[in-house]
Amino acid sequence: MEVFRTVEEMRAASEKWHAEGAKVALVPTMGYLHAGHISLVSRAHELADKVVVSIFVNPTQFGPTEDLDKYPRDFERDSAACEANGVDAIFAPTPDVMYASDFSTWVVEEKLSKPMCGVTRPIHFRGVCTVCLKLFNIVRSDVAIFGRKDAQQALIIQRMVRDLNVPVEIVTSALVREPDNLAMSSRNRYLSPDERKRALSLSRGILAAEAAWKAGEKDAQALIGIVKKSVEEGQGKIDYIVLNSQDTLEPLQKADKPALLAAAVYFGTTRLIDNVFLG
Amino acid sequence: MEVFRTVEEMRAASEKWHAEGAKVALVPTMGYLHAGHISLVSRAHELADKVVVSIFVNPTQFGPTEDLDKYPRDFERDSAACEANGVDAIFAPTPDVMYASDFSTWVVEEKLSKPMCGVTRPIHFRGVCTVCLKLFNIVRSDVAIFGRKDAQQALIIQRMVRDLNVPVEIVTSALVREPDNLAMSSRNRYLSPDERKRALSLSRGILAAEAAWKAGEKDAQALIGIVKKSVEEGQGKIDYIVLNSQDTLEPLQKADKPALLAAAVYFGTTRLIDNVFLG
Repeated sequence: MEVFRTVEEMRAASEKWHAEGAKVALVPTMGYLHAGHISLVSRAHELADKVVVSIFVNPTQFGPTEDLDKYPRDFERDSAACEANGVDAIFAPTPDVMYASDFSTWVVEEKLSKPMCGVTRPIHFRGVCTVCLKLFNIVRSDVAIFGRKDAQQALIIQRMVRDLNVPVEIVTSALVREPDNLAMSSRNRYLSPDERKRALSLSRGILAAEAAWKAGEKDAQALIGIVKKSVEEGQGKIDYIVLNSQDTLEPLQKADKPALLAAAVYFGTTRLIDNVFLG
Repeated sequence: MEVFRTVEEMRAASEKWHAEGAKVALVPTMGYLHAGHISLVSRAHELADKVVVSIFVNPTQFGPTEDLDKYPRDFERDSAACEANGVDAIFAPTPDVMYASDFSTWVVEEKLSKPMCGVTRPIHFRGVCTVCLKLFNIVRSDVAIFGRKDAQQALIIQRMVRDLNVPVEIVTSALVREPDNLAMSSRNRYLSPDERKRALSLSRGILAAEAAWKAGEKDAQALIGIVKKSVEEGQGKIDYIVLNSQDTLEPLQKADKPALLAAAVYFGTTRLIDNVFLG
C-alpha cells in the first residue's frame, strides 16, 4: 500500500493505473475509520481494480463553532485498517496542499443543501462539494463510494456530479450500524457512557418508523412522531426530524414516493444523524 | 469536421482521440466568430493534435437586463470558419443539454470576480466559471485557450483551475485588434457607424497609456487619466478604468509590478472592454 501526500504523486499513480487499463475507485473519508468506512472499501473492491482511500479532515466544511480541532485523528490506525482491507493507496494531503493561502473558488449546490443539515450548518455542504470535486480531479477515479449514513451529502454529491458533468460515477452504500443499532460514526467517540446509552433512542426511533412504514403507515407526521417520541424518551435535543422527497429533499405529506426519513439529534454536545430510505 | 450536439457524442470523440495518443485542445466561444477567435484556434493547433471549438451562448452568464436574446448567432458562418481553419470538431449544445430544469450547482470565484466587470455584472463570472468547468469536464481537453481581451475572465479561469485541481492547462492568447485598432468583439456589430467611430477613442486611450508606460510613466492616476481623457473625447460613458495587479486584481498606486490597465466603456447602449498587460 502506498501513501501519497501530494497532488502530483496521487495523479501520477492514477495515470499509471489507467494506462494499465485498471479501473480506479475512491473512498473519500475524514479518517478515524470504522466498519462503515470499511464497508465502502469492500464495495469499492467490487467495482474497481484499484482502491484509493482519501483521509483529509477538511477544514472548509466545519463552521467556526464546530468540532474541527477536536475531530478524532489516528493515521497509524487508519493506515493499518486500509492495509488490512487491501487498499492500494491512501491519499492524505495536509490542508496547505489542498488550499492555497489565496484560495477563492467554491462549488455551491443551492437547492438540496438548504434543508436538514444545511439549516444549522450553512457552509458545510459548500465545503463538502468543493473538497469532493478537488478529490475527484486529483484522484481521477472512475467511481467514488459514499455512505448513505450521510444521506443528504450523497444526494448533493450526485447532483453536483450531474450538474457539472464530472466524469465520475457516484455509488452509495448502505448505512452500517453497531451491534446495538447505533449508526456508526467517528463522532460516537465523543459520547459519555450515559449519552451513548441514550443515543440508542435515535436509531430505535428510526427503525421503529421504518417498521411502521413497512406495515403500511405513510403519513409523514405519524412517522416523524415515532422518531420524536423515542428521541424524547432518550432526552435527545432535536435539531430536525424530516420526511423528505429523495429527489428534491422537499417535505412530503405522505411517504407515497421515494422518501428519506432523517434526523439530527444532540446527546450532550454531540450531534448525531441517522436516517432510513423509504421506497 | 464533426459537429456534436450532445455530451455523450463529444465525450466519445475525446476518449477515442486520447486512446489514439492525441492531445486535445478546447477553444470555448459564444460563436459569431471573428479573427480574435481564429487566433485562438491557431494557437490551439500549435499546442494539440485535435482542436475542438465550443459554440454556446451561455444564458447563465447574462444578467436579466443584458443582451442574451440579441446576442449575435450565425452557426453556418461559424461552421464554415471552423472548417476553413482546420477545426476537428464543434461542440454546440442547446441550453437544455447544458442545464437540467432543476440545475442547482454553481462554481463561484470570490476574489478576482469582485472588481471590474464584477461590479456591474454580479452573476457574470459565476456563469462563466460554471460553464467552463462543465465544458472542461465534457470535452476533457488537455489544454484550453482563452483570449486576453477578456483579461479578467482569463485570470479567473486560471484561478478556478488551480483551486479546484481541474486537469486542464489554461493558455492565454493576445488580444486581436481590427486594422484601426478597435479590439475585436462579437458585440462590435451592435455599434452604429457614429458609435463605431467614437469607440476608437477607447483603444486609442489604452494604446496611448501603454506608450506612456513604455516611456516611463508608472503612476496609476496618470495612466488611467490618459484613457479617461481619450474616452471622454469620444463621448464614451465610462463603466470603469482601472490599473490593477495581475495577481490579485487589486488596485495599484504605481505600475511597478505586473499590472493590468483595463476599461469598460459604453458607446450608445453597447458596452465594450479593452485592456493592456503592463509588465
